[in-house]
Amino acid sequence: MIILVANLGSTSFKYKLYDMASDERVLAVGAADRIGGDLSAWSIEAGGEKREGQATLADHAAAIELHLGELAREGVIESIDAVDAVGFKAVHGGPISGAVIVDDHVLETMGQFADVAPAHNPMYIAAMKAFAQKLPKVPQVAAFETAFHQTIAPSRTTYAIPYKWTSELGIRRYGFHGASHRYIATRMGQLSPSVTTLINCHLGGSSSLCAIRDGKSVATSMGLTPQTGVPQSGRVGDFDIFALLKLRSAGIEADEALRELGKQGGLLGISGVSSDLRDIKQAAGEGNGRAQLAIEVFVEAIRDYIGAYMVLLGGADAITFTGGIGQYNADLRAMILSGLDFAGVEIDPRKNDGAQARAETRIDADGSRTQVWVLPTNEELIVARQTLAALQANND
Amino acid sequence: MIILVANLGSTSFKYKLYDMASDERVLAVGAADRIGGDLSAWSIEAGGEKREGQATLADHAAAIELHLGELAREGVIESIDAVDAVGFKAVHGGPISGAVIVDDHVLETMGQFADVAPAHNPMYIAAMKAFAQKLPKVPQVAAFETAFHQTIAPSRTTYAIPYKWTSELGIRRYGFHGASHRYIATRMGQLSPSVTTLINCHLGGSSSLCAIRDGKSVATSMGLTPQTGVPQSGRVGDFDIFALLKLRSAGIEADEALRELGKQGGLLGISGVSSDLRDIKQAAGEGNGRAQLAIEVFVEAIRDYIGAYMVLLGGADAITFTGGIGQYNADLRAMILSGLDFAGVEIDPRKNDGAQARAETRIDADGSRTQVWVLPTNEELIVARQTLAALQANND
Repeated sequence: MIILVANLGSTSFKYKLYDMASDERVLAVGAADRIGGDLSAWSIEAGGEKREGQATLADHAAAIELHLGELAREGVIESIDAVDAVGFKAVHGGPISGAVIVDDHVLETMGQFADVAPAHNPMYIAAMKAFAQKLPKVPQVAAFETAFHQTIAPSRTTYAIPYKWTSELGIRRYGFHGASHRYIATRMGQLSPSVTTLINCHLGGSSSLCAIRDGKSVATSMGLTPQTGVPQSGRVGDFDIFALLKLRSAGIEADEALRELGKQGGLLGISGVSSDLRDIKQAAGEGNGRAQLAIEVFVEAIRDYIGAYMVLLGGADAITFTGGIGQYNADLRAMILSGLDFAGVEIDPRKNDGAQARAETRIDADGSRTQVWVLPTNEELIVARQTLAALQANND
Repeated sequence: MIILVANLGSTSFKYKLYDMASDERVLAVGAADRIGGDLSAWSIEAGGEKREGQATLADHAAAIELHLGELAREGVIESIDAVDAVGFKAVHGGPISGAVIVDDHVLETMGQFADVAPAHNPMYIAAMKAFAQKLPKVPQVAAFETAFHQTIAPSRTTYAIPYKWTSELGIRRYGFHGASHRYIATRMGQLSPSVTTLINCHLGGSSSLCAIRDGKSVATSMGLTPQTGVPQSGRVGDFDIFALLKLRSAGIEADEALRELGKQGGLLGISGVSSDLRDIKQAAGEGNGRAQLAIEVFVEAIRDYIGAYMVLLGGADAITFTGGIGQYNADLRAMILSGLDFAGVEIDPRKNDGAQARAETRIDADGSRTQVWVLPTNEELIVARQTLAALQANND
């Protein structure tokens, strides 16, 4: 069973090609940029070799067609038809639960939630339609980032809003980063089977926390949209909707406010330096007060969610850090977990500082009641597995 | 030093009259309703007796004038001029720190924040101006609900928004219920001097939590406006501002959305039953699922903040419950603190169930690391003290 897991950017296409029957082996990884532009650069790594080239790619479908052709020519796959399915790490599936075969209903539902995922859903819908035209025999599976959070109880997904907005418009907390949170939940179950309650901190270009009990999501920090929760690189995180009244007094209407909050907020907004934590840390180190403030706001927000989830879980057997920021910033991890000995959480500074970011490392101190781990995530593998499961469920 | 503490509703006027030099004794309490209507009912309790009457009261200033006249006639005060100051439990003072003598600058600042406190600030401004005309010799002090939270660090008041919105427009977390949180902080210091870290749950018609260290606020659940934080009786609490995009798709523009979120959200919005927890509990008891959901959402939100503040404080020496809901609902207190033994918090069900809501009662179990108390609040006393202090500071 050969599955291609596609990750779409607005002008980019990345993928991993898995042989699921053969130990979930990665057969190839590839990428193309500047899709829709004059000339794209593409690359494929397979069998220890890398090939690169240039081509004009009108859309994401052209990109996948080119790559499949190259993979067949190289003998990585027997033919274009040898790909059994394309799995998408799709973003907002609204009420759709789980990973599903893409059909008209799925496309329609994604369209209904395009208003709250404008950067992602329209692009995925267009790509899925174009793929279906070019590769009509290859089934497509949408593995939604929201799917892992379908197990969250209504007491935590329901906003305190007029109820018909919840029941008729679907305005509720969905949560995102499902593939990553699911991977960590599964991986912790393998690494440390005694762990039944877990708080996963996925910290990166976008960040969310997830409370996990018995492998299932019971709470997460993002809500209706990925703009809520802890501050993101350029997105606001939790905010007071009534601030719109004050913004309007200053001549800033709701449309403009939401645009700014989606792009000019977050760590960028506070620091004024960059949306990249590395730049912000450097500026803070050089005495930039706003850069230091951005780091502190970020850390406090993460600590708030850790505290909330400890209460929800009745204490956590493990706390895990993943994502680019979570893996590579020992100093942030130390700030985030400082002063938590009252709850039995203590990290070993030596292990934390020495944590190999690319490897799986346990960093709690001897005697800590809570295990603390640094774990690389693997979202594509989860999407590949979900795609396989959706195909099998469909064939039953 | 005779101080009248005024509490203004849109058509109501309540007050307590204090003799601060005589053990902070309450000389009288009074009220008037239907201000601006055809005929108001007024009442005064003083010296163990109650007097009532009716009058046409054009505005809040007419109400205070009538009451002072009655109090002088009854001999509670020597004359109208015997009142040394009127203290207001004012709501949104923006950047004003502490309790201050009302002057043009204060009125102007309150005007600047009327956009985010539309139900309160304009009414207080109008009343203060009218009082000044009718009682020009009596100084007025505004004790802002935001003042107690001026000690919160920027890392917790700063939203992840474009920074000039913070620095130029004053869009930051302010927090409210300051008089109540300050009273409980002070009172706990008297009842249990060993308590240095405290989480106060002010739960009532409107609710907020406050993390207190060494008597000072270090975090609170309300933000720029009193509409954020835990769900209120009819107000939304924490929400996703980007929901406006989905509401707009459904034909609901920002203005209408904010109006609904301020009045038709909260416990009322979820339950569809009532904004009063007593009605909601009764409906839940009769099997109403949405009423039950409203209670659970409320409890989960409170637990989230308790967890966040435990992490912030490194564990809490005490957790206190006050306000109408906090004092009178043993079942809610039990739900809120369930499963917290991991953090050393345990209540004694017998003490909790038997807690005399009007008395100060300690309800934690033997061996609980954290003290848990039910405490009546006394916001007017705090305003009276702050008013006195502001007068004295001004006379120095």
